[in-house]
Amino acid sequence: MNGDKKLTEMLGIQYPIVQAPMLGVTSPEMVAAVSNGGGLGSLPLGGLAAGVARKLIHQTKALTNKPFAVNLFTYTIPAIAYETAESMALFLKEICTINDLNYTKPDLAQLQFHSYEELIPVLLDENIPIVSFTFGCPDDAAIAAFKSRGVKLIGTVTSVEEAVFLAEKGIDMLTVQGIEAGGHRGSFLSETIPQTGLFTLLPQIADVVSLPLLAAGGIYDQRTIAAAHQLGASGVQIGSLFITANESLASDLYKSSIMQASETGTVLTRAVTGRWLRALRNRLIDLVESSGQVVPAYPVQGSLTAPIRSLAQAQGIADFFPMLAGQACSRAVKQSAAEILSKLVDAYR
Amino acid sequence: MNGDKKLTEMLGIQYPIVQAPMLGVTSPEMVAAVSNGGGLGSLPLGGLAAGVARKLIHQTKALTNKPFAVNLFTYTIPAIAYETAESMALFLKEICTINDLNYTKPDLAQLQFHSYEELIPVLLDENIPIVSFTFGCPDDAAIAAFKSRGVKLIGTVTSVEEAVFLAEKGIDMLTVQGIEAGGHRGSFLSETIPQTGLFTLLPQIADVVSLPLLAAGGIYDQRTIAAAHQLGASGVQIGSLFITANESLASDLYKSSIMQASETGTVLTRAVTGRWLRALRNRLIDLVESSGQVVPAYPVQGSLTAPIRSLAQAQGIADFFPMLAGQACSRAVKQSAAEILSKLVDAYR
Repeated sequence: MNGDKKLTEMLGIQYPIVQAPMLGVTSPEMVAAVSNGGGLGSLPLGGLAAGVARKLIHQTKALTNKPFAVNLFTYTIPAIAYETAESMALFLKEICTINDLNYTKPDLAQLQFHSYEELIPVLLDENIPIVSFTFGCPDDAAIAAFKSRGVKLIGTVTSVEEAVFLAEKGIDMLTVQGIEAGGHRGSFLSETIPQTGLFTLLPQIADVVSLPLLAAGGIYDQRTIAAAHQLGASGVQIGSLFITANESLASDLYKSSIMQASETGTVLTRAVTGRWLRALRNRLIDLVESSGQVVPAYPVQGSLTAPIRSLAQAQGIADFFPMLAGQACSRAVKQSAAEILSKLVDAYR
Repeated sequence: MNGDKKLTEMLGIQYPIVQAPMLGVTSPEMVAAVSNGGGLGSLPLGGLAAGVARKLIHQTKALTNKPFAVNLFTYTIPAIAYETAESMALFLKEICTINDLNYTKPDLAQLQFHSYEELIPVLLDENIPIVSFTFGCPDDAAIAAFKSRGVKLIGTVTSVEEAVFLAEKGIDMLTVQGIEAGGHRGSFLSETIPQTGLFTLLPQIADVVSLPLLAAGGIYDQRTIAAAHQLGASGVQIGSLFITANESLASDLYKSSIMQASETGTVLTRAVTGRWLRALRNRLIDLVESSGQVVPAYPVQGSLTAPIRSLAQAQGIADFFPMLAGQACSRAVKQSAAEILSKLVDAYR
């Protein structure tokens, strides 16, 4: 199959395979392994403080001389709705107590959230060649700053409307996220979350936008890569397959849970972070969903569930540990990131 | 592209393109036009009385000598939950009154539902060569009767589990229905409705079941047909594109509404019939969804909303007329069924 020269030349990579940025899963080692193998590693920096981000960039640079992308969450941090957040925190404490988890309520007044804007000087300073983003679009000044340095920008879209919006902003490339994809939905334009299958979304975006498209969601082998290209993609972005990589930060529990999941084992939910994401269905999600509680906006809900994530991970309780994953996650195999990439690269040989 | 001889020879057709059975949309003229063009027309008979079904079969036979399929709804009719049904009927009357629609509540005690079992003698008697079914599986006696006459059976599945179930029952071929598909979800094994994208579902079923697979959901052109084959399909089933056919029973309002819909314009809902289906989002669906009312089981809810469908259609009120459609429905064009088929057939030339 044709390696889509336009995309690979634009990014300076050999194969149009992007490892999806996955906070809490992707390590500098994973990013470097994928970039060293000829794909594009993506370092997730969404919501991180500038110092932490810079350190992760340095760690990655120490492991590869190849281009890699960093990923930002380009959204506006909302004011905390204290009443809603207090109510949710009390509810979470209650369900934890019943289930022998010792939940410590975060001090809401002390919560600190970092805007993507704090990271832009760091990325420019570090000469990051490729910046991908999720939840919208950098502001016009940031886009101009990136473009003046020749930084390539990759946006994330879940509808034709979002694709047209980012194309008009001058973004260089789009990740088209089908409903199959694991992790956060990148949706940013409509109140109602778009839930369009990749099969429908990809060709319809290809028909109206002339940018190179990366297909995301449910891609795991040569067949699915070939089908994505057939539908108009110039490359693919793959997440779930890398959760089980040796270089992954995911726990053994997380890895084995996704490998055992059926294709119907995930749900879309706001229960984990306050934004829609796809994760393995579990008891924590079911309890929050059926509680009737208003779920605080992202990232507040994420801060409220963070103590549960830590406790459940430490104690190995799958029922209370949110495990983000896509609909094809069971296809993951425990291997090095280089081996995982190498199998996918066969699609382009 | 290869025409998948196994499938076409098994069905006695030229191209592996099946027109989806759509009650209220598909006419004998549509079925005959598709079969005469070398595809497979499907006559929807789900829920119809034997006499009506036989008449439709005769009408179709008068228009084509080619094989066509008939479609059954193979489910067990539930007892009516009168209290729930009365409550829903009162609610529907209330929202109709507010919106100047003169709703006449059906007499619940007089409702009659027809089991697929009533139709089996008719199909055998009429020497129907191909029977497709939705919502489960014919009982073992019916399967045996069909098989003894050489009738080919096509089941509908929305999960790997359902595919394995029907394969073990000896069904000849499966329609794999992605989340993108319009109309009723064929799901029958799990309480929670599977919502897997075609992109993930098709290759995973192809990996475990050796039957010929028809891909359904979001298929509308040569690209999507080629991608479906890439993912493991031996053919395709197409619905939405035929809603706008000249031979369609759909109203002009229905036709123009789907042609103007965006790819995010449909929802999955139980509000229309009591079973999950995909339709254009409208006010009727939103009102029922947000009412807090328990939705009666299929087909009771369908009988309760039937008067609204008639009123809304007669008065041209899109907001109260349920319009079943898939996520790619906007790709439909007003043409003859033969012309619609002919464009699709190009994928196999």
